[in-house]
Amino acid sequence: MTSAPDKAQAITETVHRYIELVGSGDADDLVGLYAADATLEDPVGGEVHIGHQAIRNFYSAITGLDRKSELVTLRVAGNEAAFHFALTITNGDHRMRIEPIDVMVFDGDGKIAGMKAYWSAENITQL
Amino acid sequence: MTSAPDKAQAITETVHRYIELVGSGDADDLVGLYAADATLEDPVGGEVHIGHQAIRNFYSAITGLDRKSELVTLRVAGNEAAFHFALTITNGDHRMRIEPIDVMVFDGDGKIAGMKAYWSAENITQL
Repeated sequence: MTSAPDKAQAITETVHRYIELVGSGDADDLVGLYAADATLEDPVGGEVHIGHQAIRNFYSAITGLDRKSELVTLRVAGNEAAFHFALTITNGDHRMRIEPIDVMVFDGDGKIAGMKAYWSAENITQL
Repeated sequence: MTSAPDKAQAITETVHRYIELVGSGDADDLVGLYAADATLEDPVGGEVHIGHQAIRNFYSAITGLDRKSELVTLRVAGNEAAFHFALTITNGDHRMRIEPIDVMVFDGDGKIAGMKAYWSAENITQL
């Protein structure tokens, strides 16, 4: 059984790895952080993607782009995390920055069981 | 039926009102923002308080104290909100600052149906 500090440490490391992969990993790397039957809702209120194949398709939309990510602030509590981060995407002459707050629930193996991303058009800046 | 922009505006106003009341309101004011059967989990992983009486008891622990609150950043998406805020509490010579990320789900009447607060001892600063 994992102690609470160890669990918090493992969640912290997974979130840091997630931010790194959002900035420079491929879709398979990102999928590897998720449980097989995980759910992903990004943005909240939109479609819920369920399972590895749907989650891989979701991330494929960004992993081909030139991008950079940065963790702004992280909270870990229980089996969950909430964090504010920024993703800057460059597409030719067009650059944009999006700053969501994400919430993740982790399962007993430390995999992401559920992810929800809170953002709207107001949180996108054209650079 | 409420349009999406109107709903986002109503949620935004309720979060601002919540932050104001956390800083200077009484427990009944805060309870008034919640649906009758709402749930409150603060911190995440701790006890889930259910319904107005339990939620009133929860807030009574802080509403007698000298305190100040400040919204750091807010995201509104669908029927939900996620926000980073700071609460500074003064108790005699002792001052502390806590900085949670809260998530709220709203019902069709704009009341808070569920609140979860993400923080741990790491997010408390003794001043």
